[in-house]
Amino acid sequence: MIAIAERINGQFLDVKAAIADKDPAPVVELAKKQTEAGAAYLDINVGTAAADQQDAIKWLVETAQGAVETPLCLDSQKPDVIKAGLQVCDTSRGVLLNSTPLDKKSDPEVLDKYVEMANASGGSIIALTMNVEGVPQNVDNRVAIAAEIITKCMELGMTPDRLFIDPIILPVNVPGAQEQPDNILAAIDQILLMSDPPPHITMGLSNLSQGTTKRSLINRTFLAMAISHGCDSAIIDVLDEPLVDVVATAEMLMNKQIYSDSFLKAYRSMAGGRR
Amino acid sequence: MIAIAERINGQFLDVKAAIADKDPAPVVELAKKQTEAGAAYLDINVGTAAADQQDAIKWLVETAQGAVETPLCLDSQKPDVIKAGLQVCDTSRGVLLNSTPLDKKSDPEVLDKYVEMANASGGSIIALTMNVEGVPQNVDNRVAIAAEIITKCMELGMTPDRLFIDPIILPVNVPGAQEQPDNILAAIDQILLMSDPPPHITMGLSNLSQGTTKRSLINRTFLAMAISHGCDSAIIDVLDEPLVDVVATAEMLMNKQIYSDSFLKAYRSMAGGRR
Repeated sequence: MIAIAERINGQFLDVKAAIADKDPAPVVELAKKQTEAGAAYLDINVGTAAADQQDAIKWLVETAQGAVETPLCLDSQKPDVIKAGLQVCDTSRGVLLNSTPLDKKSDPEVLDKYVEMANASGGSIIALTMNVEGVPQNVDNRVAIAAEIITKCMELGMTPDRLFIDPIILPVNVPGAQEQPDNILAAIDQILLMSDPPPHITMGLSNLSQGTTKRSLINRTFLAMAISHGCDSAIIDVLDEPLVDVVATAEMLMNKQIYSDSFLKAYRSMAGGRR
Repeated sequence: MIAIAERINGQFLDVKAAIADKDPAPVVELAKKQTEAGAAYLDINVGTAAADQQDAIKWLVETAQGAVETPLCLDSQKPDVIKAGLQVCDTSRGVLLNSTPLDKKSDPEVLDKYVEMANASGGSIIALTMNVEGVPQNVDNRVAIAAEIITKCMELGMTPDRLFIDPIILPVNVPGAQEQPDNILAAIDQILLMSDPPPHITMGLSNLSQGTTKRSLINRTFLAMAISHGCDSAIIDVLDEPLVDVVATAEMLMNKQIYSDSFLKAYRSMAGGRR
């Protein structure tokens, strides 16, 4: 599985403070620890508090890529912030642009912008099954938006192997949202049949358990389910060891890694190579 | 999920000794502990060592059902042993007969026998996707055998809600067997589309991890996957708390139990009611 490590994000207080103080130490440590834990990409998100987001992402990109060889996943809803990050990013390692909806009212061409930046840098994008009307609550609309995304990307010269579809997982404890996990699995089943090769499937897993009392248990149980439906990527806390154990076990059970008595250790030593 | 508790089985040394000595204490304790842990049925298997299997199953049935109200799952490949168990079993609680293949060389009518005994007692059966040629190694043959089982059961007056199909999970560490878990999930997807209502799906989960170094982790990861594909029963070690935590979480994620901050506790208090 292509694990995108979530912790270099200005929504976490340690990273927020590091950005404000331009203190590289916490970012360097997270870059190293997440790489050792098997991250295929390091997510880089400046959060909403940074005074100058373009300046902040440049600093975060330079700090993280100076510490490790792991490619980065530039994470912002704003094309200008992604663009700034790309100006200093070593894209020869690969790069992932995270994320864009199909379209939005304030920016109908937003998907085009992400695709163009990814094409220019040889990178990939994460596209959300979301459009001007927001996040669909049923399977059919998720699938319909994914189909439009795949088609548009192909028209723009991006093949599905460089496209990660994110079906948008919502917190399961919100009243009315509890049918969404099963809807997402059903949507994954259908999205994977749409093209050959199919797009990658990823998701911001931690969102599922926001506000619940059993975050890691809920996250890892759903990720096992999603992997069995063909999900091949996720934005996760790679420092959550029981979660990574489940990823390794799920991949072994899906015959993507050979069984050996030390399969958990073998998975971690190979994980960075999956992208 | 309909949890069938596996521990009252003569293959375990404590139960083997209890049967040999006709010592009820270990059996009574397992019956109580497994019931408290949320068993919907208690599996009753005399193992292969018992001198007189018919005598042994009668003693086990009487001992277990005298200790708790939980219905029993009579477990033997021999119709005569099941028949002996039924003679003393309180079938007014419900009963499950475990298990029969579609047919076998030495007994072409074996499925008919199990169905007739279940019909006479108002119980259900577990039927294995296996025939005279053995256990199929691919999806299509598993599904084809399941179709024959469903058709034959309907002809004999057994509706699919009283039929549990077991797609037969094999140890994942056996060379060549590592594609079977995914095959089984694909088979479950198809079997559930065969009738309305569909049959139940169950599996002898512990077999998956025989001989591996991470038994509980492998079992619970696969069970989460299987639940997300519609598996609604399993023969499991209900005393394995992390496994039952995953079952509770998987059922909550599949919207079969409402989310509350105490969903793990709520699951256990309700589990016995699921059958």
